[in-house]
Amino acid sequence: MIRLALIGIGTGNPDHVTLAAVRALNAADLVLLPRKGEGKSDLVDLRRLLCRNLLSEPSRTRLVEFDLPQREGRDDYLGAVDDWHGAIAAVWGELMDHHLPAGGRVAMLVWGDPSLYDSGLRIAARLGQAGRNLEVEVVPGITSLQVLTAEHRIPLNRLAEPVLITTGRRLRERGWPADAACVAVMLDAGGAFEALPPEGLHIWWGAYLGMDKQCLIKGPLAQAGPRILESRAALRVRHGWIMDIYLLARTGPRPI
Amino acid sequence: MIRLALIGIGTGNPDHVTLAAVRALNAADLVLLPRKGEGKSDLVDLRRLLCRNLLSEPSRTRLVEFDLPQREGRDDYLGAVDDWHGAIAAVWGELMDHHLPAGGRVAMLVWGDPSLYDSGLRIAARLGQAGRNLEVEVVPGITSLQVLTAEHRIPLNRLAEPVLITTGRRLRERGWPADAACVAVMLDAGGAFEALPPEGLHIWWGAYLGMDKQCLIKGPLAQAGPRILESRAALRVRHGWIMDIYLLARTGPRPI
Ligand SMILES: C[S@@+](CC[C@H](N)C(=O)[O-])C[C@H]1O[C@@H](n2cnc3c(N)ncnc32)[C@H](O)[C@@H]1O
Ligand SMILES: C[S@@+](CC[C@H](N)C(=O)[O-])C[C@H]1O[C@@H](n2cnc3c(N)ncnc32)[C@H](O)[C@@H]1O
Repeated sequence: MIRLALIGIGTGNPDHVTLAAVRALNAADLVLLPRKGEGKSDLVDLRRLLCRNLLSEPSRTRLVEFDLPQREGRDDYLGAVDDWHGAIAAVWGELMDHHLPAGGRVAMLVWGDPSLYDSGLRIAARLGQAGRNLEVEVVPGITSLQVLTAEHRIPLNRLAEPVLITTGRRLRERGWPADAACVAVMLDAGGAFEALPPEGLHIWWGAYLGMDKQCLIKGPLAQAGPRILESRAALRVRHGWIMDIYLLARTGPRPI
Repeated sequence: MIRLALIGIGTGNPDHVTLAAVRALNAADLVLLPRKGEGKSDLVDLRRLLCRNLLSEPSRTRLVEFDLPQREGRDDYLGAVDDWHGAIAAVWGELMDHHLPAGGRVAMLVWGDPSLYDSGLRIAARLGQAGRNLEVEVVPGITSLQVLTAEHRIPLNRLAEPVLITTGRRLRERGWPADAACVAVMLDAGGAFEALPPEGLHIWWGAYLGMDKQCLIKGPLAQAGPRILESRAALRVRHGWIMDIYLLARTGPRPI
């Protein structure tokens, strides 16, 4: 039997790791570290660093790096994601067979929290469906959305109001959602907020949250929007990659 | 000058505390611990326990308990909350003046994450508006929503879909929100999901998440809903209080 721990590690600040994550990492026989290509080596480095700093008996735990299969850029987005998850599940399965033929504990370090726009649980479910004897454990981690609100020192929700968490793609396609006073946007390939009439909207934006290169911008969308687009383009060139997230709110009489 | 750290501590599992929270707690000169009355002494006990276990030089840090003012049960909900925040801000201010007349570092241990349906930031903003020289720092913590998804081993969002986080009150008043495939419900005084036609909905429910008395129920809403209401009533009597949260999703062809 394989026990797979999906361990949330936060989004770049090593101090955002929980005591439970440290414990789960130390319980693992095998840690699988994906290499993502596309200049995102910072992210693999961070995982290596966490292992180095947090493993109390490094010789007990095998660290194995592997190349993450690439997703095809097909028009059929959900189909492409589905095939991609299948390819990753196959690689995970091979690595488990190879390194733990008699079973044992595998850990995967998941960016942020495993529940939020992450494919780990879906890939693990595929391995289960394919008949593998797999027990999954999830260790929660601090999300990029929490680092955004913490660094801007703002609540996620307006008092007693709902919040919608959505994607850049969806915001572009559907505009401002009917039921929300606040909208958090993730997975935006760049400036989906441009699809909204900026009047009466406020934005709190953050890139590389939790890392040394963290960058924060906030303000009325009409003024802050163009500044964000400019910084985003420049930062992306400078670092070779970018991850950003933002919260939008209708400006009311209460600031927060 | 007062430096106030709002430290997210998770929702009952001491291992969900982050390394950053441990550090911020140890940096404090004064820790303010609210007593909530209404049989919720478990929650004060947990905060005391965290301080005892995590402070490396206990003699350096002053722990002060105080009675949290009660919110009036007025019809005018927002007005009552506003007055309540005012009353709490006054108490915080007095405690700071009394225990740190020359300034220093104050820590408050915030349940879950300070960004999510918590009044700490709003109360701190009032102290600032009242002319106090206050610098606020936020340390993110694991939310009850993350413990819910981790314990049920489910993602928060459907693949590439948005999620709405809302309150029981709002769900009752407005029904199923237009734009969401998944809805997370917090602050439900009991069974707001009864307001929805249960067909085609699935629920993942959790109470006392992260604690020894944690209870999980899941299933199609039509079957699980009545079981949840029954357990909720019994648990509430047994423990004298309850906190619960749930995720609802339209049942599609994909389980997660
Ligand atoms: C595939 S999702 C994973 C989210 C992750 N599971 C979490 O809990 O934050 C990637 C998206 O998360 C956000 N993100 C993740 N890390 C970030 C960071 N350090 N700074 C800003 N945004 C980040 C961005 O919106 C990015 O497009
Ligand atoms: C005032 S809000 C505070 C939320 C907190 N800041 C967080 O991050 O989880 C209180 C609500 O959070 C949820 N909650 C908090 N702790 C919980 C727990 N241990 N188990 C289940 N629900 C919890 C319940 O919905 C409760 O009504």
